[in-house]
Amino acid sequence: MSFFQIKAGILTVSDKGSRGEREDQSGRAIREILGRIRAEAVQYRIVPDEPKLIKKALIQWSDQGLDLILTTGGTGFSPRDFTPEATKAVIERETPGISEAIRISGFQKTPRAMLSRAVSGIRKSTLIINLPGSERGVRESLEAILEIIPHGIEILKGTDSECGTKKYRNPQTRKKGRGVK
Amino acid sequence: MSFFQIKAGILTVSDKGSRGEREDQSGRAIREILGRIRAEAVQYRIVPDEPKLIKKALIQWSDQGLDLILTTGGTGFSPRDFTPEATKAVIERETPGISEAIRISGFQKTPRAMLSRAVSGIRKSTLIINLPGSERGVRESLEAILEIIPHGIEILKGTDSECGTKKYRNPQTRKKGRGVK
Amino acid sequence: MSFFQIKAGILTVSDKGSRGEREDQSGRAIREILGRIRAEAVQYRIVPDEPKLIKKALIQWSDQGLDLILTTGGTGFSPRDFTPEATKAVIERETPGISEAIRISGFQKTPRAMLSRAVSGIRKSTLIINLPGSERGVRESLEAILEIIPHGIEILKGTDSECGTKKYRNPQTRKKGRGVK
Repeated sequence: MSFFQIKAGILTVSDKGSRGEREDQSGRAIREILGRIRAEAVQYRIVPDEPKLIKKALIQWSDQGLDLILTTGGTGFSPRDFTPEATKAVIERETPGISEAIRISGFQKTPRAMLSRAVSGIRKSTLIINLPGSERGVRESLEAILEIIPHGIEILKGTDSECGTKKYRNPQTRKKGRGVK
Repeated sequence: MSFFQIKAGILTVSDKGSRGEREDQSGRAIREILGRIRAEAVQYRIVPDEPKLIKKALIQWSDQGLDLILTTGGTGFSPRDFTPEATKAVIERETPGISEAIRISGFQKTPRAMLSRAVSGIRKSTLIINLPGSERGVRESLEAILEIIPHGIEILKGTDSECGTKKYRNPQTRKKGRGVK
Repeated sequence: MSFFQIKAGILTVSDKGSRGEREDQSGRAIREILGRIRAEAVQYRIVPDEPKLIKKALIQWSDQGLDLILTTGGTGFSPRDFTPEATKAVIERETPGISEAIRISGFQKTPRAMLSRAVSGIRKSTLIINLPGSERGVRESLEAILEIIPHGIEILKGTDSECGTKKYRNPQTRKKGRGVK
């Protein structure tokens, strides 16, 4: 029997990145951290800060049945920051608790977290989460929500419609369980 | 002179509950807790996770002039969880502070609170608040917001349009006041 | 070389205030506090709780290129409180982090903060933030977000599109820097 596997997409939103003028360290950080919840990045794309291109990727990947899409970039106050608007345009159900949890954990570190306009939500059976653009922001944000993602996805997929049932198989927890003594 | 009375409705959203396959312990918990703010459940209904039926109850009860509607269930990630969407479709004014307060208090107990998509808002003169589906979730959520509900409803009804006036008659506070010495 | 200057507008939303039946202490408090971030109130208006008049002021002032608009009043549960709805109708991009930060800081002081329905967002290059109606609420809310406003506006104006660059000129920080030793 294999561990629960999460199929993920990483969407980096950056004008400079899309022109090859900046290395995508944030995207790389996401890929690395995803491994900790046994999620694999099966899709990866860098797009400029164009709502149309952001929406296109989110729609394609959710139509393909990805479990999770993490975006990085375009969530701030800059005149070309439109990732939250593009995300809101394609999601069917908002998941405010995830974005609130990211921001609350951010407030404790820096007042800059107040400038995050990131949102999150569900399209079909895909969970889409906006992360900030900086590598540090990505790491701190994922730290705040990582442990709950596998459970959220299991419920979303209908493999666990009831909270607290035996069916819940978070590999992290299992590993921790084994590790004890 | 009688205490301020709140007329409340309890809407349990649950496929299993609506088929009689599960006892409505959450609805019962709400009814019990409402007594603490001198609110009476004058309406009670169990509906399946059908947006149309959720909206119908919310519209009927707010048209009837209920002060408060508490829903339980359908706020998570499950494919049939649509209570927040049905609620957003009928409210005229959102009350984000109430749902944020519920979630923030939840974050301190369990990361699962991040998966709550619950919303709240005002339709006509009725305050509608989504609560989670589990009995424990209902109890913890109400604990976080219970004390402010009577004041919110008084303002909503126009009986107390100014904050900090003498007109505010929260029976809980009064009882506490009496109890001192 | 002059310090970075923020052009601000203060919009007081109050039926009584607009009829001259109440002094606008909240508006005055905003004006005073704005000085601390070298922001000048170049526009000031008192309107009744009429969504049309609220929207009109927000549109005019953002069209004029104001950097910041702070509203006070109309964010609660009263039947005529519609400032958040009028604001949402004119903003192009929401800035949820700012309103969440205000409320979270409020929760720590009083459960009444749960009744705040305040929102914030960006229209063109103007940041619009709803504040509560009471002078105390205005002071406490601004305290929670004041330090981040100049940075947000610089990014919004495109003078600082990258976080952490040298270009960031918060006069407060600079003064502090000078004061040291």
